[in-house]
Amino acid sequence: MASTTDSAQATENNDHLIKSTDSKHPANLIPALCRKFWGLGWVSGTGGGASIRENDLVYLAPSGVSKELMEPENIYVLSMSKQEDPKKRVYLRSPLNLKPSQCTPLFMAAFTRRNASCCIHTHSQWAVLITLLLENQPSSNRVFEINNIEQIKGFGKGFQKQGNLGYHDTLRIPVIENTPHEEDLAEYLEEAMDKYPDTYAVLVRRHGVYVWGDTVDKAKAQAESLDYLFQLAVEMHKLGLPWVSSIAQIGPS
Amino acid sequence: MASTTDSAQATENNDHLIKSTDSKHPANLIPALCRKFWGLGWVSGTGGGASIRENDLVYLAPSGVSKELMEPENIYVLSMSKQEDPKKRVYLRSPLNLKPSQCTPLFMAAFTRRNASCCIHTHSQWAVLITLLLENQPSSNRVFEINNIEQIKGFGKGFQKQGNLGYHDTLRIPVIENTPHEEDLAEYLEEAMDKYPDTYAVLVRRHGVYVWGDTVDKAKAQAESLDYLFQLAVEMHKLGLPWVSSIAQIGPS
Amino acid sequence: MASTTDSAQATENNDHLIKSTDSKHPANLIPALCRKFWGLGWVSGTGGGASIRENDLVYLAPSGVSKELMEPENIYVLSMSKQEDPKKRVYLRSPLNLKPSQCTPLFMAAFTRRNASCCIHTHSQWAVLITLLLENQPSSNRVFEINNIEQIKGFGKGFQKQGNLGYHDTLRIPVIENTPHEEDLAEYLEEAMDKYPDTYAVLVRRHGVYVWGDTVDKAKAQAESLDYLFQLAVEMHKLGLPWVSSIAQIGPS
Amino acid sequence: MASTTDSAQATENNDHLIKSTDSKHPANLIPALCRKFWGLGWVSGTGGGASIRENDLVYLAPSGVSKELMEPENIYVLSMSKQEDPKKRVYLRSPLNLKPSQCTPLFMAAFTRRNASCCIHTHSQWAVLITLLLENQPSSNRVFEINNIEQIKGFGKGFQKQGNLGYHDTLRIPVIENTPHEEDLAEYLEEAMDKYPDTYAVLVRRHGVYVWGDTVDKAKAQAESLDYLFQLAVEMHKLGLPWVSSIAQIGPS
Repeated sequence: MASTTDSAQATENNDHLIKSTDSKHPANLIPALCRKFWGLGWVSGTGGGASIRENDLVYLAPSGVSKELMEPENIYVLSMSKQEDPKKRVYLRSPLNLKPSQCTPLFMAAFTRRNASCCIHTHSQWAVLITLLLENQPSSNRVFEINNIEQIKGFGKGFQKQGNLGYHDTLRIPVIENTPHEEDLAEYLEEAMDKYPDTYAVLVRRHGVYVWGDTVDKAKAQAESLDYLFQLAVEMHKLGLPWVSSIAQIGPS
Repeated sequence: MASTTDSAQATENNDHLIKSTDSKHPANLIPALCRKFWGLGWVSGTGGGASIRENDLVYLAPSGVSKELMEPENIYVLSMSKQEDPKKRVYLRSPLNLKPSQCTPLFMAAFTRRNASCCIHTHSQWAVLITLLLENQPSSNRVFEINNIEQIKGFGKGFQKQGNLGYHDTLRIPVIENTPHEEDLAEYLEEAMDKYPDTYAVLVRRHGVYVWGDTVDKAKAQAESLDYLFQLAVEMHKLGLPWVSSIAQIGPS
Repeated sequence: MASTTDSAQATENNDHLIKSTDSKHPANLIPALCRKFWGLGWVSGTGGGASIRENDLVYLAPSGVSKELMEPENIYVLSMSKQEDPKKRVYLRSPLNLKPSQCTPLFMAAFTRRNASCCIHTHSQWAVLITLLLENQPSSNRVFEINNIEQIKGFGKGFQKQGNLGYHDTLRIPVIENTPHEEDLAEYLEEAMDKYPDTYAVLVRRHGVYVWGDTVDKAKAQAESLDYLFQLAVEMHKLGLPWVSSIAQIGPS
Repeated sequence: MASTTDSAQATENNDHLIKSTDSKHPANLIPALCRKFWGLGWVSGTGGGASIRENDLVYLAPSGVSKELMEPENIYVLSMSKQEDPKKRVYLRSPLNLKPSQCTPLFMAAFTRRNASCCIHTHSQWAVLITLLLENQPSSNRVFEINNIEQIKGFGKGFQKQGNLGYHDTLRIPVIENTPHEEDLAEYLEEAMDKYPDTYAVLVRRHGVYVWGDTVDKAKAQAESLDYLFQLAVEMHKLGLPWVSSIAQIGPS
């Protein structure tokens, strides 16, 4: 039973923000998603993470915990409108004995610049291998491209556009440089968002991928579709099959 | 507790069709199968799906939902005998806020032309890779062939035939072209069914596979056996081993 | 509630043989093992199976069911001492509407000739690939050999011998021809047991593997260790590494 | 209900040391970790294991059991301060009918020489393949090296050092020779610890890997990160990509 002091701390710490019996509440949903992602090998060894935005509130997984064991009480909450200085982030609710994720500025970029509701960061090996296979491209314009694969339909056409990509459309995911400190990636990520305004994902060289969506369901579906395409593309590479082909080659359909 | 209006809507929407405590009821079985298929990587990112027919009623997974999270209330139901115009499909029961699957005409082809009881559509990467490895064949007659592998016994001999294929029999799965709109595939699928009347599956180029069966159990077993063979065949290709060999090569047995 | 007639049938059918609240009872253990094996990809599409012997009684998985969905009531039971004619097998207890497994004579060979307590049959792709990679050997003496891998210690030294193989010992698993009818394999299996009296497993060309053990735990551990070694050996082959090396090459230890 | 004699035996055997309702108690945590590791393919066929130290007490998984089925009552407990002769280890608590793990002296080395709180031993195939790919190095100085991969940040800088490795740092894991008897590995392991004082892991040729950490969470995270890197490195090798590159090649970041 919590002591009076504990209750007071809990109130001050806004613990009500992460307590809900609704399985769709972000504080319940983030741990459930992370358990699933751990099973997919996306967040091994405390890497990766996920964040959900509901209106002005942003819910964040903490840094350095086993992602499949995360609990609602491990979740950070912040208010988007109350962030005066991005270097000194203010949290409405912080878990005890944990540190905020270094991914926070990258998740925030998806929320502020793309109005996303969810952003997922994975260290999927397929994502890392794709960036390695693209190292022969100039770093100033590295981009993963694939077309004429059905799963491409799993992606939206782009920011504020209706509908999804078609089978013959080329999906383009830019690759940014990795940095020693993850928070310094935000600048590169924002540059890539400016250059590829319709992308829902950015690969990070030798590191992984950030994927977002207009809803939690769309972010999850796009993350799964992308990982599928990365894995397929690595297999295609091993078999000597090109990632991009012309409609003429693909036939009349 | 549902309000009177809700109850009225539920009655009008025939919700009794998808409510059962029997785990073998199609509205319970489709979500259970889809959870399993998601674990196998067959329906990542809302791709793929499954449909079950019981006598005149067809139960269908909806479009665009996370297949491992599907619930009985997400299931569509239609009557096969009440479909006057395939372009304007009439549903006995529709879930709220969802769209019918684009696979519907393809599932219907298996039910009407092959009297199947279940049809499964996967985006399995092994299926896609097989179609890629067969692109050197002329598109007018693309077919996956394999023989002398025990798992081939997992397939029925064909439409209205008794028994299963033997170890030395050659399993043949035709490959059809993919189309920008999934519902347009039905025409190609029906052509392939006419050309290969005994097949229980059709590969779709750069897309996946449709597999059906006389019962739900047989459709599931054939889908699993086929994916096993696709994966094995990709590995055989990597190791330089041919998919088809003569009995003489295989020995006296 | 069962009717009087049902109860009578159950009594006649010796249903008490497969009813136990003990999770270690063979009728509970076989379904639990098969669920696990399905997850490992060993028994996809109703392939493979498992059997346990306790003194004179043999418990068998049936033919043609989804192995991960098997229940105790699906289990066959026979008495080893009451099998006068192996062509006309008599069952003490048979499930309704199912057929006995074609693997039965092979499981029986492990029980009668090796006094095994459990025999596991998988269609693992790694096992099949190993047999394919060995097709350049003469079929009269095909054998998988590997040494100097720690996991080899997972195998017993052989029939009626104490202790396990050592790190430097060479594990030898004979490969027999596959036959169109699985029950015809028994003859080849028995020949292989005579020729390799210490083996706890026999590979079947383009089909899979049979593994047994003095106890259920040992059979399971040997099946897992063997699949590990098959997978490792396929990877070694892809990387150009030999399966067998001399101690001199391996060093002084 | 336990008889008086059973209770007396349990008391004498210090069964209270392995009975706790706290899921974080080592006797509960070791089985939970081992179930997870079995799912990752790290401890197939009774191979591998894990040990946790809390102050003076060491909790150990037994030898030769199915690691995913382990229960708290299978756990050994010993006191670090009461080990006068490492050849004659004294246990405070021993399970019935089981044998202590041959890994014990290796786990003890991590506890006594590195003050670790947890040590994990896996037979991961990726670890074994890495040691095989390094066999062209002289056995006197075999070491796995990788840099410029984000997941390297999952490792601590070293013994009694604060903080973790950086993205550009080179992770170095020494490879020791395997020995016919696992307990004889301890000498090689201790040598490797002396030579690489900052390493948190040691690869064992053709066998697997030992990984430890200052806490259970850190040991687990390091084991997962390392397996991720081993798998990635095997894939990189297959694709002809080097494991170590210069910062100049990697770019300005």
